[in-house]
Amino acid sequence: MVIYLDNNATTKVDDKVFDEMIPFLREEYANPSSMYEFSVKSSNAIADAREKVKEFLGAKSEKEIIFTSCGSESANTAIKGAVAHNKSKKHIITTKVEHPCVLNTYKSLEKQGYKVDYIGVNANGELDLEELKEKITDDTALVSVMWANNETGVIFPVKEIGEIIKSRNPNTLFFVDAVQAAGKINIDVKDSNIDMLGVSGHKFHAPKGIGVLYVKSNVILPPLITGGHQERGYRAGTENVPYIVGLGKAAELAQENLGFELSEVKRLRDKLETGILKNIFNARLNSSISNRVPNTTNIGFEYIEGELILLHLSDLGICASSGSACTSGSLEPSHVLRAMGTPFTSLHGSIRFSLSRFTTEKEVDFVLDKLPKVIDSITKISPYQEELEHLKKTRS
Amino acid sequence: MVIYLDNNATTKVDDKVFDEMIPFLREEYANPSSMYEFSVKSSNAIADAREKVKEFLGAKSEKEIIFTSCGSESANTAIKGAVAHNKSKKHIITTKVEHPCVLNTYKSLEKQGYKVDYIGVNANGELDLEELKEKITDDTALVSVMWANNETGVIFPVKEIGEIIKSRNPNTLFFVDAVQAAGKINIDVKDSNIDMLGVSGHKFHAPKGIGVLYVKSNVILPPLITGGHQERGYRAGTENVPYIVGLGKAAELAQENLGFELSEVKRLRDKLETGILKNIFNARLNSSISNRVPNTTNIGFEYIEGELILLHLSDLGICASSGSACTSGSLEPSHVLRAMGTPFTSLHGSIRFSLSRFTTEKEVDFVLDKLPKVIDSITKISPYQEELEHLKKTRS
Repeated sequence: MVIYLDNNATTKVDDKVFDEMIPFLREEYANPSSMYEFSVKSSNAIADAREKVKEFLGAKSEKEIIFTSCGSESANTAIKGAVAHNKSKKHIITTKVEHPCVLNTYKSLEKQGYKVDYIGVNANGELDLEELKEKITDDTALVSVMWANNETGVIFPVKEIGEIIKSRNPNTLFFVDAVQAAGKINIDVKDSNIDMLGVSGHKFHAPKGIGVLYVKSNVILPPLITGGHQERGYRAGTENVPYIVGLGKAAELAQENLGFELSEVKRLRDKLETGILKNIFNARLNSSISNRVPNTTNIGFEYIEGELILLHLSDLGICASSGSACTSGSLEPSHVLRAMGTPFTSLHGSIRFSLSRFTTEKEVDFVLDKLPKVIDSITKISPYQEELEHLKKTRS
Repeated sequence: MVIYLDNNATTKVDDKVFDEMIPFLREEYANPSSMYEFSVKSSNAIADAREKVKEFLGAKSEKEIIFTSCGSESANTAIKGAVAHNKSKKHIITTKVEHPCVLNTYKSLEKQGYKVDYIGVNANGELDLEELKEKITDDTALVSVMWANNETGVIFPVKEIGEIIKSRNPNTLFFVDAVQAAGKINIDVKDSNIDMLGVSGHKFHAPKGIGVLYVKSNVILPPLITGGHQERGYRAGTENVPYIVGLGKAAELAQENLGFELSEVKRLRDKLETGILKNIFNARLNSSISNRVPNTTNIGFEYIEGELILLHLSDLGICASSGSACTSGSLEPSHVLRAMGTPFTSLHGSIRFSLSRFTTEKEVDFVLDKLPKVIDSITKISPYQEELEHLKKTRS
């Protein structure tokens, strides 16, 4: 039995997505760039998917939609393309809590001579907009901000951020990493100041290995992968027709299920969160209650080790995580929680639970039944018994 | 009915490949980087596939195998990484007949200040090794050469080329684009001077959207896509588990079927080629008969237009191509055939037929039955009737 509460790491491919992909993994295998009749279904299927993704993101034109191989490629294309096209400008602004994929890209740009400012967050994970405003100069080539945080689910006000950026410097490009927002809250780039936006299919029930980069029609961006004319020259490489079709269907389903996400998934997340905080004395919510995507909760278990909790949960078939999957295996505490000033007492014992539309009430009830015993058994062997005793008194 | 003779553009996914991928598109959807038990099958499946690809390429260690999203990404990673790591060296050597994916990458590097030499070929498509030898200097960062040509199937002597390179400058890196060689001839990087080698899954019955970059263990290469720690830091992005599994299986099957490719596929290709050349007076082979991959033939039909031939073939359900799929839609004659000095009389009317292990004798017979009539009807409306009359006399 698997109880999968790690949907911010990846998601199950929706059966409806799977079914739409199958013909293109079997008999409809033509290269969509070919000239003969046999390729028409493949190229039409790509056009259909592009239209669906356009609707999903609220883009003005399907020409603004570029298919990539993943969220990392989308981010790399946007960031490296933006700075390559604005060679004279050497300043970039991002946040301290971006995904490692984005942060590591900035670290490599720093080595190439770029100055990167990392904007901080408060204890609730909210971005310091005043700091952002002050940092933007004439030399700022790019501001890049995630829409929703992968670890805490905290939503950044990208509409407001876009207005701040363009009021300070209309030439500064604005990239939004929407990987953790897509499918969880409404994405609408129309009438926003977003120039580029990246999403990853496998975070909303498409397969791993397909992503999207939205590029506003007036933005010029050199390709990261050069070569053939595919994706109107923005991305070379024979199109991954089955996954593009799957992504289109997943986008359509995500749009249809957005109401369910905001009501039912949120209800189950809140039930899980409330139950844990109520029944486990050394549990502590990392982030505010409001202003989060509906599927995520990040809870610190004070004075104990997160890896040990995950191990016990894994034995019970429960999948959850500490930090992002991309940094798992590392024993460094989360850079996101550190940026929020999370006390060291819960920094090492923080667990993220992330639900999806396939999460059931029964699964949540199972976790609520098992988790207190797991935490209790680990807490008993913690070397911090005095502190725990004190905590128990103050919280009861 | 589809008679698919365009296997250098893309191939059908083998049913056995499809079957192995399915579980990872359905219930085994874990992120392989996760820590829990549920992810073990995914990460083991990647390790198995890596081992299979290692065997397929004759690599020394599975650490030399990096999964990418396509052949273009493999080439971009190799080429851009090699020059980024050797910043002081500004000279690159490649050939005039490389795939557009590689040529366009060099065009973009020329704009960045690199000097690129393009080595020519003779009328049979064979590389001028003397010219190559002369061009290599102390400043040469990289030599990049395809193993087999996508349009003509001509095989370059990469072992000999590697020896020439390293004898002139042991520090020059050697990249081989093996996209059209994999699955058609034996690939063995062991004891070769190849530093990097790229292949694309969809050219040997894996799906579109997965590729491999072999990087010799002593070669340092910065990643093209930065971010997470996947692929040992060589390529960020959540692993495309289903396609990686599929590629592993496809590599295993390609290895098993290599004998069949070199005997039976070659027999059918030769039958097709001989039949066309014998029965169509204005047909002319582009390339020598020997030294080609066993599945490809490129035939010029003199004084007529290739696009028109393809259109007629498409009406009959026959898929073939002129040039690469990546340049289709363009009316420019093939850069490969031009580099070979193919006479203009057949340059515009050249067609590539590329077979696979799924091509049947019946399909070849069908083409041999239909093609003469197609060519005859088009030849009749050619404006070059005098020249055709003369040709008929000299060839009969």
